[in-house]
This record gives sequence, C-alpha cells and structure tokens, in this order.
Amino acid sequence: MPVVKVYAKNEAVAEIEVEKNSNLLDILQRNSFDIEASCGGKGVCGKCKVRVKKGQKPYLENLTPEEKRHLREDEISRGVRLACKVEVCEDLDVFLEKSSERANILSHFAVNDFEYEENIIVEKVVLQKPSLDDQKSFELRLKEIIGDCNLKVLPRTLQKLARLKDQEFYAVVYSDEVVDVKNCSLAFGLAVDIGTTTVVCYLVDLAEGKVVDFYSFVNPQKKFGADVISRIDFAREKEEGVFILQNEIIKELNTAIQILADKNSISKDDIYRMVFVGNPTMLHLLLGVDPQTIAVSPFVPVFTESICAKPNDLGLEINPAGTIEILNSISAYVGADIVAGILSTQMHKSSKVSLLLDLGTNGEMVLGNSNFMLACSTAAGPAFEGVNISCGMGAVEGAIDSVKIENGKVHFTTIGAKQPVGICGSGVVDAIAYMLKEGIIDETGRFCDKNDAYKSYMKEVNGQQAFFITDSVYITQKDIREIQLAKAAISAGIKTMIEHAKITEDDIENIYLAGGFGNYINPWSAIEIGIIPKKLQNKIIPVGNSAGAGAVLVLLNRKIALEAQEIGRKVKYIELSNSQDFNQFFVESMMFENDSQEGEER
Amino acid sequence: MPVVKVYAKNEAVAEIEVEKNSNLLDILQRNSFDIEASCGGKGVCGKCKVRVKKGQKPYLENLTPEEKRHLREDEISRGVRLACKVEVCEDLDVFLEKSSERANILSHFAVNDFEYEENIIVEKVVLQKPSLDDQKSFELRLKEIIGDCNLKVLPRTLQKLARLKDQEFYAVVYSDEVVDVKNCSLAFGLAVDIGTTTVVCYLVDLAEGKVVDFYSFVNPQKKFGADVISRIDFAREKEEGVFILQNEIIKELNTAIQILADKNSISKDDIYRMVFVGNPTMLHLLLGVDPQTIAVSPFVPVFTESICAKPNDLGLEINPAGTIEILNSISAYVGADIVAGILSTQMHKSSKVSLLLDLGTNGEMVLGNSNFMLACSTAAGPAFEGVNISCGMGAVEGAIDSVKIENGKVHFTTIGAKQPVGICGSGVVDAIAYMLKEGIIDETGRFCDKNDAYKSYMKEVNGQQAFFITDSVYITQKDIREIQLAKAAISAGIKTMIEHAKITEDDIENIYLAGGFGNYINPWSAIEIGIIPKKLQNKIIPVGNSAGAGAVLVLLNRKIALEAQEIGRKVKYIELSNSQDFNQFFVESMMFENDSQEGEER
Repeated sequence: MPVVKVYAKNEAVAEIEVEKNSNLLDILQRNSFDIEASCGGKGVCGKCKVRVKKGQKPYLENLTPEEKRHLREDEISRGVRLACKVEVCEDLDVFLEKSSERANILSHFAVNDFEYEENIIVEKVVLQKPSLDDQKSFELRLKEIIGDCNLKVLPRTLQKLARLKDQEFYAVVYSDEVVDVKNCSLAFGLAVDIGTTTVVCYLVDLAEGKVVDFYSFVNPQKKFGADVISRIDFAREKEEGVFILQNEIIKELNTAIQILADKNSISKDDIYRMVFVGNPTMLHLLLGVDPQTIAVSPFVPVFTESICAKPNDLGLEINPAGTIEILNSISAYVGADIVAGILSTQMHKSSKVSLLLDLGTNGEMVLGNSNFMLACSTAAGPAFEGVNISCGMGAVEGAIDSVKIENGKVHFTTIGAKQPVGICGSGVVDAIAYMLKEGIIDETGRFCDKNDAYKSYMKEVNGQQAFFITDSVYITQKDIREIQLAKAAISAGIKTMIEHAKITEDDIENIYLAGGFGNYINPWSAIEIGIIPKKLQNKIIPVGNSAGAGAVLVLLNRKIALEAQEIGRKVKYIELSNSQDFNQFFVESMMFENDSQEGEER
Repeated sequence: MPVVKVYAKNEAVAEIEVEKNSNLLDILQRNSFDIEASCGGKGVCGKCKVRVKKGQKPYLENLTPEEKRHLREDEISRGVRLACKVEVCEDLDVFLEKSSERANILSHFAVNDFEYEENIIVEKVVLQKPSLDDQKSFELRLKEIIGDCNLKVLPRTLQKLARLKDQEFYAVVYSDEVVDVKNCSLAFGLAVDIGTTTVVCYLVDLAEGKVVDFYSFVNPQKKFGADVISRIDFAREKEEGVFILQNEIIKELNTAIQILADKNSISKDDIYRMVFVGNPTMLHLLLGVDPQTIAVSPFVPVFTESICAKPNDLGLEINPAGTIEILNSISAYVGADIVAGILSTQMHKSSKVSLLLDLGTNGEMVLGNSNFMLACSTAAGPAFEGVNISCGMGAVEGAIDSVKIENGKVHFTTIGAKQPVGICGSGVVDAIAYMLKEGIIDETGRFCDKNDAYKSYMKEVNGQQAFFITDSVYITQKDIREIQLAKAAISAGIKTMIEHAKITEDDIENIYLAGGFGNYINPWSAIEIGIIPKKLQNKIIPVGNSAGAGAVLVLLNRKIALEAQEIGRKVKYIELSNSQDFNQFFVESMMFENDSQEGEER
C-alpha cells in the first residue's frame, strides 16, 4: 500500500498508509487535516491546493483540466495540485500550503464558461520615420497602424507618445480610445464585489482573459454600522457622513490595488478597468451619493442604472485613462451583486426555472428563467451572519462554523482550527438543525424540558435557557427566535415569488446558493430548519461568490454589461413590505417544520 | 444745429455744433476723440460704445439691430449705444466709456452668421414623487422627463440629484450625458485662442447662443521665450520644461476663468465647455506634450487631430463634468487657430478664391475655396510684432502704433495716448511705408543721403543711420532689413501658393487679414511696402480675431467641429523650407516695390 507523508510548515506531521487509488483530499480530510474544499471536491472551487512531491521531484502525473484551470504555471512546476484531483498510486510527500490566516471570506466562484472577448487590445507598434515629404503627426501614424483613425487619444497618452515615438512600444486600445502607450504589454482589470461586511477584489489579466489573483478585506465602513440601515443612518446623521463612508472604502480599495499590483509585479498603471458590484447602498456610498431614501418607505434608490466614470472621479488609483464601471442594480435592496449573480448562473438564459438565494448580510432572492424573473429581498441576513446572536460573530478565526449534535455528544469545528470564541451563522444553523433533530427544541422553537440526553449541556443564562456548545459558547431561546424570524422571512420570500409566478416548488430545477452564508451553510441544516423546502434538496448548487463571478464576466466581455442592463429591465421587483402574501407566508413559516407539503397544497 | 456735449470721466470736455443727422462716430473721430472702431463704423465690431443721454434720460431712439446684438440689456437701459449707429438729430450728451487700459489685444471679430444650434440643453425639472407602487430610482425619473433613458450620468451629478430630488431644479444635458443638476439655469462656455504672445478667452452664454464677455492676457510663457522656437528650446533644455510651461498657461487660464465668472456673476461650475485654438506648439504645451519635433526638420507635431479631454485632465477649473475640446491643426506650424479662421470666414464653402493671412508672431496663410485649399507658414512674424526692432515693442500702452510722414513732418499716435516709449509692428510698417513714399529710403531699403526735407530727423545710432520719430524712438537701417526679410517671406509664401494652385493674383477675390498685426496694420502701408499685392488692395477684409471667432462657432454648434476636421483633411500643407519656388520668390521679394506686375508676367 502506498504511503503518504504529510508535511506542515516543512515538518513531517503524519505518515499514512492508504489504499491504492485513494483520493488525496479524502485521505487528508479523514485524517483531520483542515483542507478547504468549498465545492466538495469537484474541482470547481480550486481551494484544496497542496504541494506534492515524489522523491525529490514535483509530482506532475495525471494533471487534470481542472487543475490546469485553477493553477498558475509556476504553481504547477512546483508540484502544486488540487488534492481533490490526485489519486494516490505510489508513495508521495504532501506539503500543506500555508493556510490562509484571514477571515473566511468567500472569494471563489464557479462559472461554467468564461466568455472572453477581446475588449482591451494591446498592440506592439513601431512608427514609421517621418520626412519632409511625410510630415503627418505621430498620433496619426499610431492610429494608422492600429487601423482606426477615429480613435480618441487623451493628453496623457500624447505626452507618453512624445517620449516613445522613436522606439518600439505597446498601444493599449479600449473601446474607441487609445488609453495608453508604454513599454510593456500588460493590461489588467479589477472586478470588485463590495459587500456590507466584506469586499473581494479579483485581479484579471485582460490580455489572457483570466483571473490571476484576488484580495479581500473587511469593509472598513463596518465600524460605522454593521448593516445597510445603520450605515445609512450614519450617513444621514453625521455631517459629511456620506463622504466619510466613501473615503473609507476608497482608501481601502487603493490599498488593495497597491497590494495586488505589488504581489503580481505589475504597476497600478497597468490596470485599465474596474467593474464594481454590490448592494445599492454600498454602491451609493462608493459614489458618495446619499442613500437615505433607501432606508425609508417607499425605499427608492437615487440610481439603479449602470454608471461609467473615470478613476479620478472617485479617487481610485488605477491608470487615470482607465474606466470605472458600476453594474446596474434592480431596486433599493436588490443590487448589482444580484444582477452579477444572475449573469454568472445564466439563469436568465435557461428555460428551466431557477432560484438564486444570496444570503449575505441581507437576503436577496431571484426566481425565474428566460421568460420571467422576479426578485425580492428581506432583512433576514444579520442573524445568519452572527448578528443579534448571544455568542454570535462573523465567519472569522475562532468562530464555530459547524456543529454536530448526536448520541448525546456535541462536536464542532472552528475556523482556522482555533480555540472557539463564538459562533458564526453556519454554526448556529447547524446547532439548531441538530437540536431539532435530537428533540432538544420542538417545532415551535421552544426548549423541551423532557429531553434528558443533553441535560448536561443545558444551563440558564440571564434567566434564559441556553444550550452550551462549549463552556462559553451557547445558544439561547432568544437566539433561536432570531433564527426563526430570519428563516421565516426567507422562506416566505421564496413562497411569495412562487405564488406570484403562478408555479409550484416542483417547477424549480436549480437552487443556486450564493453569498458568504449561502456557501458555508450545511445544506442539510438549511433544509432541516426550513430555509429551503425539503423536496428541493437535490437541486442545491453552491455557486460561491457569484456576484464576483459576474463582475469578472463583465470585465472579460464588454457585451455582458449590456446583458446586465437587459436583466435589470426584465426583473420584476416584489416589494415585500407591501405584500399581503408575504405577511401570511411569514406567519406560516415561523414554525420549524419543513412545510413543503403545505406549500404544495395551497 | 444740434449740439453734442462730450463728457470724459464725467467732466465736460467738448461742446460741438454739428450738422443735423451727422453720424456720432464721425463727429467724435473728427474731433480727435480716440474711439475704437475696428470695423470702420459698420456696426460689426461693437467697440465704439458711448453712453448717450438726452437731457436726464438715456437716449434710446432708433436703436438698430446691430446695437441690440452688441449691447447687453443693462447697457441699453443705461443709454449705451454704438456711436457708429447714432444719427444726431437733436442736442445730446455723450459720455465716453472708460477706455480699456489694457494691451491692444485683438479681441473683437466679425462673423456673418452665428450658426447656433442647441448643443447644451438646460431643462427645468420636477420629479414625480415615488410610492410603494412606483419605486424607480430618481435618476430614472430624471431621464424619463428629459426623454432619453440612455443618457449617462456621472457620480457627481448623482450626488447633487440626491440633494435636489424633492424640489424644482435644472438639468444640464450635453451630448449623451446629464452633466449637471442644479438650482439655476446658467450654462456657459469658453472659447480660448492661445497665441504665442496673447491669450483671449470669450465667455459664451450657451443657452442664449452669444458672446457675453471676454478676457485677454499676455501669454505667461512669454517670459521663457518670445516665440515658438524659444519656447520649444526651453521645454527641451529645462528639466520638466514642458510641464513648467503647461503650468504657467493653466494657472493663468484658471485666473481668467475666475475673473470672467466673478465679473458676470456666475459660478465656475456654470461653465461646461472650453474650446481651444492656437498654434500647434501652444496646444502641445497646453496639453503638456513635448513639442520638440516641431522645431527640427522634418517638423512633425505629436498630434494634429482634435482632442477631447476632461477639465481634470488639464487642471482647468470649470465644471468637472464639462468638456475640454482642442480643435484640430493642419501641420506643425499651421494650427487650430488657422482652422478656426477658415471656419469663421467660411472660405472653405465659397466658390470664390480667398486668401487668409494671419500675421501674428508667426505668419500663416491659406489660399483656396470650396475646391482646394493650400496652407503654408513662415517665421515672418516677430519683426512685425516689434521683435528684433531697435525700439520695437508689443502693441501695449505707450507704443507708437501709427505713423504719418508728410510735408517734412512726422505725426504719430500711441496706444492709450500715452508718452511714446517704443514702436509696435503697425507703427514700423507705417513708418517704412512713408519713408519709401517720401524718398527717405529707396527701393533697396537703403537710406537716401540726398533727401534733405527730413534731414533733421536723421541721426547716427551706434554707427548706423537712423530715422527718429521721437527723441528716443527711431528706425535703423537694420530695422528696415528685418522688415524687408519678413515682408519678403510673406510675399513669397503667397506667391508660392498661387503658383502651386495654378491660379493668378487676379483670381483672388477676398483677402482676409486676421491676427493682431493683420488688424492693426494700415492696409495702405501693407500694400506700400509690398506685403500685399497692390492690385488686391480693394479686396482686403479685416476679420479681427478670426481664430477666436472660429472657436466661438465650435462652442455654439457642435457640428462645426466636424467641419473643422473636414478642413484639416482637405488643406494641403506646403512645406516652404523644402520649396524651390519659395526660395526664388523670397529673393525676388526682398526689394521694396509693389511687384504685382511682375507676378502677373511670370
């Protein structure tokens, strides 16, 4: 039997005898190594990177197409592989890559096909020498070589052209403009998903048409309010509040740009486009536009259409001749992130009805296909992100992110395998799902006094009953109520759309789970507590950061932005605060029971 | 007979009995009042403003269309009139308006018809109140009112929209963009002619379609070199020289913008467009583009095409959402100012052959009609601007600007009627023309020893003979040589174009004299010294600052910019440094003789 030696930080930590042809990811996970594999080992997420050697040599056998897609050339030559794609046939040394010390920010995504269209052209140029018989300007010579004399040229490009005209150089052409002339052929773009809690920036090589790196950070506006409404309150109440929030995000974005540029040995000037997605409030704040009308009925945003601006308009430090694009939104609470999500799932092009659930700080949902599209949003998110939960916390190191309660015992894992300091959304949902299954709580959400198997885990906290996962992390009766409200809102939203569309649950063929919570959540738990109807359990497809994926698509293909506008016009937004259906479904959904039967009978 | 009482600075300075129905301008000029009337009293230039009262009341009788065009409403109500349009039928009090204390910078121009096309639309807007059944964004509401949902909107406009949405406001739409929303309906533009020596800015009310004010200043780059070549040398030799020169002009332009805004009680933000014309070197320096290839053979500019930029690209302080347009040039020495001159004369649309002479610091000429257009340039200018002339100076206060030598006496005038301190181009040309006529110099340009009538005016200066106009202002033999070289260059340029076009002098139907010198020069003198063929003397039409006029046209009608590009493609540039014809004509033209006969015999 082959032997796998596992090294962490270059120290041998395990020696495992394995069956021939075993899957490496399985081996590592079974042996309690914390390998991230959000897609469950399908080769989609690209997260389960390990470095593999056979003797002294990098192990390059049976490299799969998925690996070629997710791994850079330099990684492959060092022996980096996706553990999920390696079958162990002989003795191997496996080096665990340094695991990310950062928050569990969703940065991966799955897109079936990157439709790449050359939108930025980089062309090598040598200008013909002028003479007294041929005195035309250097600018005209350049345009003639590029083959379009109607191209626009900005002053900055002319300044550089004056310096480069006598040598070989590269011209960068985008849309109807020569945006740059320079010594190198690099052309990059940034796709940015601004979440209320986290921001993810994808660095995209526009010439190669692929994502080469990403950088994510906690939205620095968080210190002025955890959710959309508290940010809007800050913007309204504080003088220049909008600009304070705008400056915060711009400053951090510039830091991200610098870090990504440095890390990839490019100049900030090599970045020519940025595409932004996010919820409407985040986009208003990005542009310095007062979002206060979003917070009060009738919930009207200042803008929803796509916006095109110059880097200087926002103070973003990419090439000043570059372009900043803000993708269009749908309504005050259904933003460009959802439009991007639709783009990445392509649900708007399919005849099959799909449901897109983006459960982040807010909960947004889209139901539809190529014929119709409905969207709605609920303020369900915060509880699922650990907000308003007694021991709740974000999905950062030390948070309990999964819980299993079985046979009188409680098991859990924490992010980064650290000492547990609290519990994040996916952990709470797991805990409640198992508490239901084990009869610790009943269908109404109340703790059952009669269950003795877990008596030792129950204690009072401030006069409330609570279930203790560790000595200091627990779930109270009130926490359960919070989750009940949140799950009822989402469930009722889904039902309202189904009702509105005059279809049944059975007509839904795909459920795309997007957003941070939607991806880390255990689908079984989500079904158990009734977020998703049980009969749809086999139709769940986690799509990672579909908002980021959509932004990348727009970056790679300008025409996709037009598709986004088409989606914006097509989607009908259902205002739930105004919907009698919703109110009724909401009340009906408060119970912990998987009510798909009921749904069908209506 | 009616009596005209003339007041200067509110003091009565003259009481004149006049024939009934006399023209007021004639009366004032015959009585030695210095009234500017560049168009010769045709009501075209609008310069001969005086304030007229009948008793205590403003005199408003027989107001002509020309006056209504040139005078603002507040001027008319104060009794301001164009002297050239007032017929004196009764006793009047005439108050001379304070004459400009500034340099004699050419700011007036003549354009037959301002083709005004609404290019900026200012629309009063009241947005419909949203409701839960109508949640569309305020931006969409705005676009719907304007009637174009594809309009672009920049972040800054959205920021303002968020503040104004609940009240009545104005939307400013230009091209495919809502460039502003605000409380007032003002929309202005600036047409700027950047000369090597002087810069003129015209403030244009874009909503009304008319020029409302102007401001001119000496090009601050002048301290780094008086002519194009010395500026280019500075830019090349000094580190960051290009940017030093750019900063100089931008700084002064921003001052001009502020002054014009203050003077007209508008905000800088009410200015949405700037159109620039100038010679190619000035335009290169405006954009910070190194112009050094303009100075050396084969004389190639970095750009000649029109450039469109944002105010921030150049640091110009108008509305940041506004547009900066640089009109296209033709070659290294035939700039956008000449293209604008062609536009303002409309010679490119006429079947008649015209000659446009723009004699500023450089001498540029265009010959042609709707079928063909030729252009060339000579470095003739500096002498005509007082450069390299012993007592030469620019056309500023104290400069002798006209000279008459007759009957053994010398008469002259100075700019601003000040103590003479030097002589400017028009004075030098006058002096030499009369010296020729009176036989003080001969056809070769040499002083004639035998002429005794003016003996008292002749003296030696540094071993050279000189003719003294005043005790300290004189013309030397070398000065005469400078003028001979300059006039030969222009004359030879004209002949080269005529030769190239295979036409004769007789085919030329209009001579448009443009540029500072071209307008202040006495046509008789210009013909006498042989700049212009004598047989064309009746065809001379002074067109003032035709470059500025063309820039204003572009500001008032966006389509004119396309016409300018058409002109740029159509005009064939003749490189004189490469032309054998020119060299021959140049030698032939050195003599002071009006050689139109010769020209015809060739």
